[in-house]
Amino acid sequence: MIKIGLYGYGNIARGVECAVKQNSDMTISCVFTRRDPSGLSTISGAPVYKTDSILSHKDDIDVLIMCGGSATDLPVQTPAMAEHFNVVDSFDTHKNIPVHFENVDSAAKKSGKIAVISVGWDPGMFSLNRLYGSCILPDGKDYTFWGKGVSQGHSDAIRRVDGVIDARQYTIPVDEALDAVRSGSQPELTTRQKHTRECFVVAEDGADLERIEKEIVTMKNYFDEYDTTVHFISQEELDRDHKGIPHGGFVIRTGKTGQSCENNHVIEYSLKLDSNPEFTSSVIVAYARAAYRMNKEGMSGCKTVFDIAPAYLSQKSAEELRKEML
Amino acid sequence: MIKIGLYGYGNIARGVECAVKQNSDMTISCVFTRRDPSGLSTISGAPVYKTDSILSHKDDIDVLIMCGGSATDLPVQTPAMAEHFNVVDSFDTHKNIPVHFENVDSAAKKSGKIAVISVGWDPGMFSLNRLYGSCILPDGKDYTFWGKGVSQGHSDAIRRVDGVIDARQYTIPVDEALDAVRSGSQPELTTRQKHTRECFVVAEDGADLERIEKEIVTMKNYFDEYDTTVHFISQEELDRDHKGIPHGGFVIRTGKTGQSCENNHVIEYSLKLDSNPEFTSSVIVAYARAAYRMNKEGMSGCKTVFDIAPAYLSQKSAEELRKEML
Repeated sequence: MIKIGLYGYGNIARGVECAVKQNSDMTISCVFTRRDPSGLSTISGAPVYKTDSILSHKDDIDVLIMCGGSATDLPVQTPAMAEHFNVVDSFDTHKNIPVHFENVDSAAKKSGKIAVISVGWDPGMFSLNRLYGSCILPDGKDYTFWGKGVSQGHSDAIRRVDGVIDARQYTIPVDEALDAVRSGSQPELTTRQKHTRECFVVAEDGADLERIEKEIVTMKNYFDEYDTTVHFISQEELDRDHKGIPHGGFVIRTGKTGQSCENNHVIEYSLKLDSNPEFTSSVIVAYARAAYRMNKEGMSGCKTVFDIAPAYLSQKSAEELRKEML
Repeated sequence: MIKIGLYGYGNIARGVECAVKQNSDMTISCVFTRRDPSGLSTISGAPVYKTDSILSHKDDIDVLIMCGGSATDLPVQTPAMAEHFNVVDSFDTHKNIPVHFENVDSAAKKSGKIAVISVGWDPGMFSLNRLYGSCILPDGKDYTFWGKGVSQGHSDAIRRVDGVIDARQYTIPVDEALDAVRSGSQPELTTRQKHTRECFVVAEDGADLERIEKEIVTMKNYFDEYDTTVHFISQEELDRDHKGIPHGGFVIRTGKTGQSCENNHVIEYSLKLDSNPEFTSSVIVAYARAAYRMNKEGMSGCKTVFDIAPAYLSQKSAEELRKEML
């Protein structure tokens, strides 16, 4: 059994607990939190300890899954823990990945452990599809669309508007843009042409709805480059109709082959997810198995999904995979 | 420059020549044929030699791409050539892959070369998506649909019917089945429910069309388990409307996550290809780069798409990939 430790206990950690139940070669051995452990009960029933005691639990952990946030937690925590454990994180601030990689890589090389960073669906499965697509069809172009799904960051931004009590924002890919991409015409698409944004907002009694709407749709970096629709609803409606955290999207690569580029090809990968964090956790768990196995084979250092042969993700042997899945 | 040799010169080889033009780190160095080389001119302009002279061209070949057929060519040729060269083939007889692997593996281990077998889209990219999907969503089920596309084997089978001059057979996935799968209901689907078959047939003047149609739709192993439609058309119509070799298909994995499996997820990978052999060749060329690089790093033996880390397929460095694609 691969012993999985969880560092932090939020949505991702709970998703990992659910995912590990579906993988018969793994168990959740312990959970670490900065909060008071006595106030926390886990889905798996695994014991909870304070993060500062983690080094006394080294024998209980084959792979430590880092469940903190990308903004401030993971940049510090992943390199620190990679000095002692095989780790997997879901660091998703795309532009900071090169720096994060370097920090984690030097820690993991020192300890002889494997650290897999930026695991999930974007970065993660979407990245893989961008890579495979570009290698197969070099004379082509790829497009990533997100949604329909809840953007936590945009929902938070709306909540900071004066007079707003609660909000939920959906990112929605534009059908006409998807169709244009699938046609193989390799269109140049603006931000506005690719996605729309739909907001469900609970406002304070008597708030100036017109002002709130205007503040939302003109908000820099969040909404100003998009066509945005705002719906004012009650808290009851928000809780009833918008409590899920669905997401998904599309990676489409189109390209041409042939003596005079006469043949067109479309590769499309899409996800339709009822729960964004649970799917992310499910990807993380598969890569935790890979981290464990690669480290057993003597490998160390920081890896991404690009560096990991797919067979490492599976419980099945190489023979079984060739027989049943190739 | 990676020097690519071609063993055999048919559709796949011509597709490889076109694909290599799109990859600036590669060149076609030579082509080998069992036919008379003087009668053969290549797209790339590469020189053509008899297959029995291949060992005198060892210095001209970094990776030899095996372009023969799976029925009788590759089971013999790939192991024989893996004793001397890094090789890539597109062996696609699924049930014989384990035996082919063993034969090629022992040859490649002896020579210290890399041999990548069963490269293309199925086996190949579809296999990868079955593997990734099953690892991410273990509590789920996957489905592969083929088409709409031309099945060469079924077209050939129709041509063997008495009174038939020419034929083209399309495999078509059933929309209702695709929708049922995407719903996440994990339906059990029969062969008949998943695909239909459409045949365009040129018959001899005065042939008994009713008999021909009946012989086709009841043909064992080819058509008897499907709903099959037969259209009789002229040779001119066949040549005008059905000369392409399009194909494609779908790999869909659906699965559940959550404390009580309350969340459903759909992973869908699809291909829409104007030219089946040219796309297959494009995948082969990317894996030829991987074979070359893995062998440079000292690896040897038989590999499949499952064993190859995605980064090996790309011309870009690991740093570039993390920066631009992750």
